[in-house]
Amino acid sequence: MENGGAGNGRPPASAAAWNFAASGTLLGLSALSVRGVLGRIKAGMAAEDDGGRPVIPMGHGDPSAFPCFSTTPDAVDAVADALRSGEHNCYPSAYLSSDLPYELSADDVYLTIGCSQAIEIICSVLARPGANILCPRPGYLFYEARAIFNGMEVRYFDLLPESGWEVDLDGVQALADKNTVAMVIVNPGNPCGNVYTYEHLAKVAEIAKKLGIFVITDEVYAHLTFGQNKFVPMGVFGSVVPVLTLGSISKRWVVPGWRLGWIVTNDPNGVFQMTKVVESIKSYLDISCDPATFVQGAIPQLLENTKGEFFEKTIDVLRQTADICWEKLKGISCITCPSKPEGSMFVMAKLDLSCLQGIKDDMDFCCQLAKEELVVILPGCALGYKNWLRITFAIEPSSLEDGIERLKSFCLRHSKPKVLLET
Amino acid sequence: MENGGAGNGRPPASAAAWNFAASGTLLGLSALSVRGVLGRIKAGMAAEDDGGRPVIPMGHGDPSAFPCFSTTPDAVDAVADALRSGEHNCYPSAYLSSDLPYELSADDVYLTIGCSQAIEIICSVLARPGANILCPRPGYLFYEARAIFNGMEVRYFDLLPESGWEVDLDGVQALADKNTVAMVIVNPGNPCGNVYTYEHLAKVAEIAKKLGIFVITDEVYAHLTFGQNKFVPMGVFGSVVPVLTLGSISKRWVVPGWRLGWIVTNDPNGVFQMTKVVESIKSYLDISCDPATFVQGAIPQLLENTKGEFFEKTIDVLRQTADICWEKLKGISCITCPSKPEGSMFVMAKLDLSCLQGIKDDMDFCCQLAKEELVVILPGCALGYKNWLRITFAIEPSSLEDGIERLKSFCLRHSKPKVLLET
Repeated sequence: MENGGAGNGRPPASAAAWNFAASGTLLGLSALSVRGVLGRIKAGMAAEDDGGRPVIPMGHGDPSAFPCFSTTPDAVDAVADALRSGEHNCYPSAYLSSDLPYELSADDVYLTIGCSQAIEIICSVLARPGANILCPRPGYLFYEARAIFNGMEVRYFDLLPESGWEVDLDGVQALADKNTVAMVIVNPGNPCGNVYTYEHLAKVAEIAKKLGIFVITDEVYAHLTFGQNKFVPMGVFGSVVPVLTLGSISKRWVVPGWRLGWIVTNDPNGVFQMTKVVESIKSYLDISCDPATFVQGAIPQLLENTKGEFFEKTIDVLRQTADICWEKLKGISCITCPSKPEGSMFVMAKLDLSCLQGIKDDMDFCCQLAKEELVVILPGCALGYKNWLRITFAIEPSSLEDGIERLKSFCLRHSKPKVLLET
Repeated sequence: MENGGAGNGRPPASAAAWNFAASGTLLGLSALSVRGVLGRIKAGMAAEDDGGRPVIPMGHGDPSAFPCFSTTPDAVDAVADALRSGEHNCYPSAYLSSDLPYELSADDVYLTIGCSQAIEIICSVLARPGANILCPRPGYLFYEARAIFNGMEVRYFDLLPESGWEVDLDGVQALADKNTVAMVIVNPGNPCGNVYTYEHLAKVAEIAKKLGIFVITDEVYAHLTFGQNKFVPMGVFGSVVPVLTLGSISKRWVVPGWRLGWIVTNDPNGVFQMTKVVESIKSYLDISCDPATFVQGAIPQLLENTKGEFFEKTIDVLRQTADICWEKLKGISCITCPSKPEGSMFVMAKLDLSCLQGIKDDMDFCCQLAKEELVVILPGCALGYKNWLRITFAIEPSSLEDGIERLKSFCLRHSKPKVLLET
């Protein structure tokens, strides 16, 4: 900051000379972001090690850097064409209606700057003094950060690892009260890699209806399924309970940096009109920023021209990397995955600290792993789930094998000697 | 909403069945947006009239639709190249340092989704219970909308029409108290079209320093000046008072839809570090969305390749349309402009309702004008300045002449007969 010019020769001003005081609440929110936690883990890590081994990023869900996951040239052409033409069109609601028992209209779809702005809007609209929302644990703490920023309380219900990470429906009922405005589900699951059945979603809808709360369904991984359960949109139950569906082009087209998402009101009975949710969303959009116009304009051509083979190829690679991840993790004794991932790009693994030495907790595990093996994994504490790990398998297959081998070496090196384990 | 499917046969649910209650504060904020006000004015207007006359948009500041203001192909190429390459780079702080007496570092520049996200971030960072900020009147009410949303009070100081819209410095002193955290200036001026001198900005800096408040300078129209006063960045006074400079590529490159702006900390004494403003901005960015990566990536090439002639051509057209606007408005008796615009794309004109009949106020004037003449002008009420008009001259010169002719016909048609005026 001593960079010359007009500041030269003056003593630095003291903080007390200014009226501003920083908000402790805001300063604390950074700790709730995946970006913030991964930043702390990477802080102690070299860019590559002496042997020239590269960093293996299994911490966040951005496969766009890997050739096997690169987006289709059709999508790039769509945006480039829209940029050069300058024309902008509305989002064709037909794409989002295809799996639903009713037709969406253009009025049901609000374009957003990726799914994160969709969450920001939803939290801004639902917040009022005393209100609370129910979120899944383990889960993405961004909801909590935005809710707290807007003065809303977050309460956590459990996802049940022994039941394929289904929602603990009794837990939801126990948590809800008259101030509960909505519950959040994420399907396909981030961080759990699970995919909910039609039957389970029907139960979620009935419970929410009984409690008088809306359902927010985060379907940013929609259609990215490769196991037994097919993807069922929560909007199918829009006539039982009003559903706000959040989505984006980030994951299916592997373009997280393009920042285009949406909020869809799945609500054939018009509850969101009656309760002024729609009016509140429109009002918040009036004081918010929009996605880049030419990305909006590219959407019709992107939907029209993207070939089925592109999606199939992505799914095939994900199925293959999920298999590699599942099989190879079995060979590491201090890590257990309760179920094989069937969707999204992640799997949750339980860390057994009792068979490791010199490792305090999941954060410590991830920091030491990054430093010694240049492998980045997200600690469960960033998902409200202490002493678990979230592992991303959406990376190049050879890197994934290498990464899990390094994870295994790390665990072996830090294992308690057998004699210690037996005493 | 009766669109079949799962909703069939059920009675519509009543609003009372759901816990959610809409926030009146949020619902009221839409009225503070230019988008909201222009929407109400356009609601009564046909797309074109019987004689095939087109709509003339002199209400908002988006000249990008007019050939004489179209952006340079170099800028389009920069974004298209960044899109195809996938490479992303940091913002070169050199561009923003060029007019300053000290060097900015990359740490002083935060990229945002246009200037509106920059305002959102600033308001989120500065807000705390009881805090207030000082804003100019007439002015852009977006600051008020975001401040209210974050629970912060806005107080208005006057800009003085008889002194080239300079800040009423005595008014600023009278408004400020221990809870005042910052004051906002807009230079070149929106909506007034004025450009502040070095001497006036120096006085603003001294007053702010004395009061212990930061200066937020909205320089989204930086370099768009075509009169006597040259543009002086407020950051020149960063060692007197810490300055947050907001800007974007929207206006100088005529690409408002590309959504790329910035916040710059002009603060060679490090006050923003000491007071944790910097930490608060970073924390808020951790829970916000980013600009599209390839637009960020395009910035170095865009700065490098844009030729001086492009900027000169834009300025030449603005000087020409400002002249047309100024000269032709003189011929309308019920409208008075206190000073000729020297920057930005706007001029403020005072409406003399006493010489008009059947017109209640500025909003009524604009609604009837839109309906009868298909000319859209922003009423002063949208800028906290009742019974004035903000006229955009950044449109095709022939459209501008046509638009002001129609405005004149409208005023003549609605003038009180001379005999009535004399009584």
